[in-house]
Parts: sequence; C-alpha cells; structure tokens
Amino acid sequence: MTEIDIKDKQTQTIAILGGTGKEGPGLAMRWAYAGYPIIIGSRQTEKAEKVASELNVKLGIDTIRGLKNDAAARQAEISVLTVVYTAHQFVLQDLKDDLAGKILVDATARVDFRDPKPPTPPSAGRLAQNILGSQVKVVAAFQNVPAHVLRANITEPLNTDVLVCADDIDAAQVVIQLANAGRMQAYYAGNLDNALVVEGLTALLIAINKHYGVRTASIGLSGLSY
Amino acid sequence: MTEIDIKDKQTQTIAILGGTGKEGPGLAMRWAYAGYPIIIGSRQTEKAEKVASELNVKLGIDTIRGLKNDAAARQAEISVLTVVYTAHQFVLQDLKDDLAGKILVDATARVDFRDPKPPTPPSAGRLAQNILGSQVKVVAAFQNVPAHVLRANITEPLNTDVLVCADDIDAAQVVIQLANAGRMQAYYAGNLDNALVVEGLTALLIAINKHYGVRTASIGLSGLSY
Repeated sequence: MTEIDIKDKQTQTIAILGGTGKEGPGLAMRWAYAGYPIIIGSRQTEKAEKVASELNVKLGIDTIRGLKNDAAARQAEISVLTVVYTAHQFVLQDLKDDLAGKILVDATARVDFRDPKPPTPPSAGRLAQNILGSQVKVVAAFQNVPAHVLRANITEPLNTDVLVCADDIDAAQVVIQLANAGRMQAYYAGNLDNALVVEGLTALLIAINKHYGVRTASIGLSGLSY
Repeated sequence: MTEIDIKDKQTQTIAILGGTGKEGPGLAMRWAYAGYPIIIGSRQTEKAEKVASELNVKLGIDTIRGLKNDAAARQAEISVLTVVYTAHQFVLQDLKDDLAGKILVDATARVDFRDPKPPTPPSAGRLAQNILGSQVKVVAAFQNVPAHVLRANITEPLNTDVLVCADDIDAAQVVIQLANAGRMQAYYAGNLDNALVVEGLTALLIAINKHYGVRTASIGLSGLSY
C-alpha cells in the first residue's frame, strides 16, 4: 500500500510507547491513516526513527515520527502503551512525569504466550493508575486485537470489538472515538478493575486459536441495539 | 407457547441443579424442546415439582420432572449447576457422591449484581473440580447467558456464544453439543482456569448494559471461519 489519501487532519498527537513491537505499528498506521500525527516511542531513538520511517514509506506519508519514549510521551496528548508485559511497570515508573496531565491508554495483557492463563488482580490498567497517580487518566484498551490483523488492510474495519475500561468515562470516550477513527468498534465496559477480564480473554483466545486451528479468534459484543 | 413438537427423543437425562432459579428454567425448556428428559433439582422436592409442572404446562409436554438435588444428580447423566453463587461450594460438597462418574456443568459466575467486579482465582469451575475430585468431569459453561433471553423464544437460536472451559476435552465436546441442541453456539476456550475470565465477563456485561441502557449485551466470537 502506498500513497494513501488522508482526508481529515487531526490535531491531537498520539504516541505509541514501545511502538516498535508487534502491536504498535498496526495502531500507528491506522491512526496515521485517520489523520493523526503519530510518534513512535522506543527506548532507543534510532529504533524508533527506523520504524517510523518504514511506516511512512509504507503509507506514502510523513506524519509519523520516532522519538525516545519519554520525549514521545511529553509531545503527545494521548500515549498508548504497547510494551511487552514484563516491561510494563518499569516503563510506567520511568514515564510518570512525562505523562502528567494526559491520557495513557494501556494495551498490556499480562499473558505469557507459552503458558497462557488469566492474570492475577489487580489489572494492568489498575497497576498503571496506581503507579501514575491521579494526574494521569488511564484507559485500558486494545489488549486483544490480533497484531497481524491490525497491520493487514489498515483501511478496512476490524472484525473485532474493543472493550474499553476506565475510571474516567470522559477519557474512555476519547479512546472509543480513537478506536472508531482506526476502524474499530469500541464499547465502554466499566472501570479499570474490569480490564483484568479483558487481559484474561487473551488466554482464552490463544486456547481457541489453538483448538480450532485459526489465528484470528476475536471477541465481539452483541445485544447492543439501542 | 404450547404443544411444541419434540422431534428427536434423546436418551441422556439432564438434571438442572438449583433449577428453580433464574437461569435454570430457560436451559431446562431449551433442552426439553430438543428432546432431552429433564429433571429440575431443588433443595425442596415440592418446589422442584412445582417448577417442573409449570414448565411442562408451558411447553405442552410431560418430560420434565422435579426432584431434590441429590436424587436429581443421581438419576441424570449430566448435571448443570445453576444455584446462586453464594451456595456454590456448599451444594457441591453435599452432592459429591451423587455426581461421581458423571459430568457436572458449572454455570456459576461469582459476581454480585449490586457490586459487580471480576472474581478472584481460582475459577468456580476449578473450585468445583477440587471439591468433587477426579471422579467427576467438571465443565464450566453458560455463565453469561442472560436468563430472560434464554427463557424467551426457546425455539429460536440465541444471539450469544457460549465459552466452554474444561480440563477434559471430551467432556467439553459433550457440553458443546448440548449447547448446540439448545440452539446456542458454543466453543472450547481452554481449561477450567480460563473459566475465571468467563465469570468475570459477567461484571463487564453488567457495566455495558448499564452504560448503554440495554439488558441483552452478550459476548460473541469472530474470526473462527475454518
């Protein structure tokens, strides 16, 4: 895919912290396509710049930059955390001051793909809120979206529903709109404690994929016609 | 609805333990309609007989009986536990011998509707397996099916997917077929530990129902075309 046509220029900058991994590039491309200025964050500037450059080339655009995680967090209105789950708490402690006054979207599912099982409480989102304190609005979302599905056909709607958990409903609403901009249906599913269940769904989806010989099992909601 | 036409007589008897509550009657009617002999179990014989009689009248059949929980478990090949979650462990301790050698389907979600939050590990299904021991095959399923949806239009397919968790895949397969017979799609979603997530989904569905002003939010699976 090259030379995509970005119609609606957005003003809010989105940082994808740990954006050089599996999940980050798909989200970055979907939001870049929706017109958002994007910063790929990484522990290493060079790695961030390299991935940003690759994604720009892939989309035929120049609105994706690469920075170190702390600079990325400072320059963005909304940061999305997509680091490996073992780095979750360490990265957050490091970025506490850089995220102050902003929204942090936590996409962490603390599930080991080699030994998938439901994580123990508290949820990753609750852990993040505890670390970051009340100056940051934590929203848990995007924990279950299969990375390879996210990256493929970024202009197409995703056949999966995003469950959005947050203590602050206004912040949740911002993330629901962000998901919609990335061609994903998203629904508010309660406070940050509920995010534990969304993390745990990852273990079930791994079991389902294995049992049915697929790679794309996803969760959806029904019964919401209102 | 009266005088339903039962086409396929099944031979396996299903007991619905605690079947006089909210969830039990809907499952009982769906399986009776599919041709299974049904026993409604209760702590009190009279209460069980009364509900069984009401369901028979409602469907124009005579294949639903009422018995005390222990007798119901002994006379059935498959028992489905639909007691209130506060009674879960107590009832199982009581029925351990009656369930030996059989399948126990645990539909318990330990979520308080007045203060809904994800339950702590282990899952209700794992607790049940620990109490009942290796002589019983525990399968966790049907924790999230809205009771009023289950009871309405029992001849219609349900717009919800049942996630089936069990350590024994053959037992899970029996329950998947049972769900199918009751006009529900069902999928194997891993071992009994994973059932914790399915229980927890109840808390999310309550939050979703409340936020979106509906009563019928349900979970579905997609990406399983195989």
